[in-house]
Amino acid sequence: MCAICFNIGTTELCDVCADPERDNGTICVVEDALDVLAFEKSDKYKGVYHVLHGVVDPLNSIGPDDIYIPQLMKRLKETENRGQVKEIIIATNPTMEGEATAMYIVKQLKAQNSELKITRIGRGLPVGADIEYADEVTLGRALEGRSEY
Amino acid sequence: MCAICFNIGTTELCDVCADPERDNGTICVVEDALDVLAFEKSDKYKGVYHVLHGVVDPLNSIGPDDIYIPQLMKRLKETENRGQVKEIIIATNPTMEGEATAMYIVKQLKAQNSELKITRIGRGLPVGADIEYADEVTLGRALEGRSEY
Repeated sequence: MCAICFNIGTTELCDVCADPERDNGTICVVEDALDVLAFEKSDKYKGVYHVLHGVVDPLNSIGPDDIYIPQLMKRLKETENRGQVKEIIIATNPTMEGEATAMYIVKQLKAQNSELKITRIGRGLPVGADIEYADEVTLGRALEGRSEY
Repeated sequence: MCAICFNIGTTELCDVCADPERDNGTICVVEDALDVLAFEKSDKYKGVYHVLHGVVDPLNSIGPDDIYIPQLMKRLKETENRGQVKEIIIATNPTMEGEATAMYIVKQLKAQNSELKITRIGRGLPVGADIEYADEVTLGRALEGRSEY
């Protein structure tokens, strides 16, 4: 497991963290290692990751300390002293547990450093979708998340 | 068919256009009447609509003048003189034809009035989606469309 981002790998640092070309100032927080692969395939992201290895899920007795949230806080504390981190992108899944985990992390991060830029990945209509078959919540979010031309 | 927005109905004006509570300053441009129903179900939208009844689709010989784009331009010209329209939301489907239609409409609208606020509905991950199964384009757009907390 990578010593920095807890991505799965056979070496001490994962391929992303070991790459000097990546932007260490942007950290994308994902649920698991497969999400890292998905983002890497999209070829749009040049920052680094932090893998939580799960979500906060009280019904299954998984609390914040059972996944890699404390490690994220520690990592940020260490890098912040060197003024490195510019943005945290919370990319947990848009499910009930994922949203709850995102909210918990945002609260913790804001308490630790209220200046930090924290963003949530866009939610709305996926490519190829049809509006008439989209659910109400997705449509509502697509309206909220509209962007100007 | 509604005389203003070309939504389907049995009266001269559709239920939305006839409702004095709706905000006439925001027009949501949709592909067909079923999209209006979908947005109405989401209960998040308080503006009015414009139904195109199709998309620009050159492969099937459907040009901009075969759908209700000229009527949209005319409607805007008429209402703009009275300073009414504040925003146009382009809500065609995020498919190839839908995006092409959106681009065409934006170009026409900008040529007619460069001051007009034109927005596109948010594209990204739908509710309940899993990042590891999302396609590359959707993930790329979810990253682009991220919003600050």
